[in-house]
Amino acid sequence: MTTDTPPDAAVRAPAGRRARGGADARRATRSHPKLVQLPYITRRIPLVTVLDEEGLSLIERNADTILEEVGIEFRDDAEALQMWRDAGADVKGTRVHFPRGLPRALIQKTAPKEYVQHARNPERNVVIGGNHTVFAPVYGPPFIRSLDDGRRYATIEDFRNFVKLAYMSPAIHHSGGTVCEPVDLPVNKRHLDMVYSHIRYSDKPFMGSVTQPERARDTVEMARLVFGKEFVEKNTVITSLINANSPMVWDGTMLGALKVYARANQACVVTPFILAGAMSPVTAAGTLAQVLAEVLAGAGTTQLVRPGAPVVFGVFASSISMQSGAPTFGTPEPTLVSLAAGQLARRLGIPFRTGGSLCASKIPDAQAAYESAQTLLPTLQAGTNFVLHGAVWLEGGLASGYEKFVMDTDQLAMMQVLSKGIDLSENGQALDAIREVGPGSHFLGCAHTQANFETAFYRSTIADNNSYEQWEAEGALDAAQRANKLWKRMLEDYEAPALDPAIDEALQAFMAKKKAETPDSNV
Amino acid sequence: MTTDTPPDAAVRAPAGRRARGGADARRATRSHPKLVQLPYITRRIPLVTVLDEEGLSLIERNADTILEEVGIEFRDDAEALQMWRDAGADVKGTRVHFPRGLPRALIQKTAPKEYVQHARNPERNVVIGGNHTVFAPVYGPPFIRSLDDGRRYATIEDFRNFVKLAYMSPAIHHSGGTVCEPVDLPVNKRHLDMVYSHIRYSDKPFMGSVTQPERARDTVEMARLVFGKEFVEKNTVITSLINANSPMVWDGTMLGALKVYARANQACVVTPFILAGAMSPVTAAGTLAQVLAEVLAGAGTTQLVRPGAPVVFGVFASSISMQSGAPTFGTPEPTLVSLAAGQLARRLGIPFRTGGSLCASKIPDAQAAYESAQTLLPTLQAGTNFVLHGAVWLEGGLASGYEKFVMDTDQLAMMQVLSKGIDLSENGQALDAIREVGPGSHFLGCAHTQANFETAFYRSTIADNNSYEQWEAEGALDAAQRANKLWKRMLEDYEAPALDPAIDEALQAFMAKKKAETPDSNV
Repeated sequence: MTTDTPPDAAVRAPAGRRARGGADARRATRSHPKLVQLPYITRRIPLVTVLDEEGLSLIERNADTILEEVGIEFRDDAEALQMWRDAGADVKGTRVHFPRGLPRALIQKTAPKEYVQHARNPERNVVIGGNHTVFAPVYGPPFIRSLDDGRRYATIEDFRNFVKLAYMSPAIHHSGGTVCEPVDLPVNKRHLDMVYSHIRYSDKPFMGSVTQPERARDTVEMARLVFGKEFVEKNTVITSLINANSPMVWDGTMLGALKVYARANQACVVTPFILAGAMSPVTAAGTLAQVLAEVLAGAGTTQLVRPGAPVVFGVFASSISMQSGAPTFGTPEPTLVSLAAGQLARRLGIPFRTGGSLCASKIPDAQAAYESAQTLLPTLQAGTNFVLHGAVWLEGGLASGYEKFVMDTDQLAMMQVLSKGIDLSENGQALDAIREVGPGSHFLGCAHTQANFETAFYRSTIADNNSYEQWEAEGALDAAQRANKLWKRMLEDYEAPALDPAIDEALQAFMAKKKAETPDSNV
Repeated sequence: MTTDTPPDAAVRAPAGRRARGGADARRATRSHPKLVQLPYITRRIPLVTVLDEEGLSLIERNADTILEEVGIEFRDDAEALQMWRDAGADVKGTRVHFPRGLPRALIQKTAPKEYVQHARNPERNVVIGGNHTVFAPVYGPPFIRSLDDGRRYATIEDFRNFVKLAYMSPAIHHSGGTVCEPVDLPVNKRHLDMVYSHIRYSDKPFMGSVTQPERARDTVEMARLVFGKEFVEKNTVITSLINANSPMVWDGTMLGALKVYARANQACVVTPFILAGAMSPVTAAGTLAQVLAEVLAGAGTTQLVRPGAPVVFGVFASSISMQSGAPTFGTPEPTLVSLAAGQLARRLGIPFRTGGSLCASKIPDAQAAYESAQTLLPTLQAGTNFVLHGAVWLEGGLASGYEKFVMDTDQLAMMQVLSKGIDLSENGQALDAIREVGPGSHFLGCAHTQANFETAFYRSTIADNNSYEQWEAEGALDAAQRANKLWKRMLEDYEAPALDPAIDEALQAFMAKKKAETPDSNV
């Protein structure tokens, strides 16, 4: 809470940025001039907590007990095992037992509290950590849901569409990663088209491929073509999602990608993927201790690979239906896990990721909205720094929804307003307005209202607040039907941000070379 | 946060209860034996705040300035003006100017911090205040919305239906008041049928009529027939909604009802009804100062009428669309007002009412759900003690929705779970489960999961978490369609709670007499 409302903090210029030329100079004037964009959130409302000091210490002790007694599996990665052995852990086969406090000490010694992820348009740089929140769209769905097509497999055209829509959304600060899975492209090559689409159709920061170490290396190579090799070595331009194989396993694929990114000074979001009751105990406190243990092991590994590499404490928190085993969303138990995990991340001292606009509903109906809102607001309140799945998510993450995109981005923009808190400036106090209007009158035309007309209240893009009669006269549309019109209009209005033709050519040449090297494969 | 999870606190027995016979004895065994009911909430998660000490003091100073300089209108009530004159206020015509701190001192001297509202079934008594939250349904809509009928005027049959549905809902703790406006009955007599319906078809606590002092007196009379005259004199059995005519006006109708209830030791929810931008400034800090001034004047009046009468700090917080003037809901500005108002109420030291499941949407679609969830979660987090409009609300309060009832009550039950916080008992910590399962396995069949199977996670009544294929095979229903089946099944299963035939006869005789006294009128 502050006594005035200064504009959101400008993104800080990178330390090494002024000395660079080449690709840097070419990126100077790439911004779409007409596009309205909100800066990433700088939160001015208090954090919401659910555990006190005693509770937090208990969870931390239990995490240390898990790390020491049970240990964590590091599978198919002899290098990671050797690194932990060298660091003082007790390694038996693929099981690593950690001396109490070792991973925490490693992380706290070298991992940054926050980091700048650079975008190719420096105005879109984001700070991940501290009291900042960055919204990114959904990650991973193989299906598409729209009012027009119903449900069908996603294609690279859908992928490009969601990149374009995210680019145009004021409250989406990050282009994300696998905004849908383009299943029309071969598995071993589609990462090239995905990374290229983020670069070509947006100028916001993006995520890298993690499905093979080779694909992570391709992502880093493409980033070097855009940002310059030296710049990438010194700065973070990619944030990538590294999921644990919960409970208590880090597998070779994820460790391979983690090592590529950490070595290249790029950020890893180390994330236990939890459906409580399946991948963790059915209780929040048990889940939290396990999550913390998994994060400590994964994030600690990044610091062994390259001390100082940015790493994020992630948790994907959901429960399952005890009847069917199906994942559930928007229920109270994961909310408690997310809020407490945010507290644990701050005590560890690295950025935090959880939540989003999650739902189990197959369609953008009331269920989807209740569940999404009940996930999103706690996500903001937990002090989440990087919000994956902030928009587009449907069907437990199996479908990317076009209408859902419109609805969720409206909610994200509201979170942006909420995070500013209450303006206690003289204008905010409005005593003169109250004196002017007096009892029994109204504030509609008073000077204070007129002076604040433009910015007074959040204006929803999708809500219908009209009278019943007017709503009915306009076709009695539901929110999904209105959203359907909006995303189509956005795609019609889309204009690509400028991209230096030399960079574009270099990217295309790299992709062509890589695609020619190996036959198509769906593995 | 606690280290164990004792059952929710039992409702305390009223002090004067043991000494009574008569009506009391007749009410002894009235509970529906098969009905599952949750006790009112005893919150164990921290409150959410948006203002610090400095901000709160500033708002309080500004409220005192409004009360002193601008003053509050008390219209058509010479008695109230005289009471304030006698208390030391400066009264000019109908305008009352208050010495700084006077109303606050009056309230803090005699108004209770919390009170028990007794239900005719003592198991349904609720404590309003402290760290408790009581959910009641919507109040006031003249229209009905259902998938079957679309939108139409409400009738007394709808009224009875919503009383029955609220009675059957585990997470609705209070039967509410005007759950819809039965427009098929004459205005000057419908309050009798409304109060009777709450008594006859439910055994939960209820609200009284406020539209004329005479109707408030009828409510008190009917309550005396149920609870006994002496019991009503010593205990609170009615909580009623007294709205300010914002800005800064208390009118004769509301003051008349307020005086009837306060004199009878019954509770008033003194509530500025705020559409910010119309009834208050467009800023949160300005709105809060005005709201506090209005509450201080209204709540202070109750203590002049009868020191010690229960009174609740209410605020109905909404904004308007600056384009159309239409009220909007679920937007960030009212959330900030509600959270800060909760802080102000706790400093004043009386129970707090705000929020609910508010929305502008005409139908139970995604808009309705986003808006309702974005109102409800902050309502819980604000430490709200009495939640009117907790369910059923549609169309800015103009329509009571049958499907919305099902959806909202599911959300209310989730708030009940959330409010318990994290269980840090040994069972909650689940270390043995983690040891038993170990890395790379799953928790589905482990001993801890089996032991906690029944209570592990909240089970939604309305969410579909099944696979896409199963959902499609079952008709690809949206949430509203599923809700439609559920409320109909509930009404089919409804069984009335027992009511002593002598009380029922007395109530019916009273109503018949009152109805015969005057001709029907729609004023």
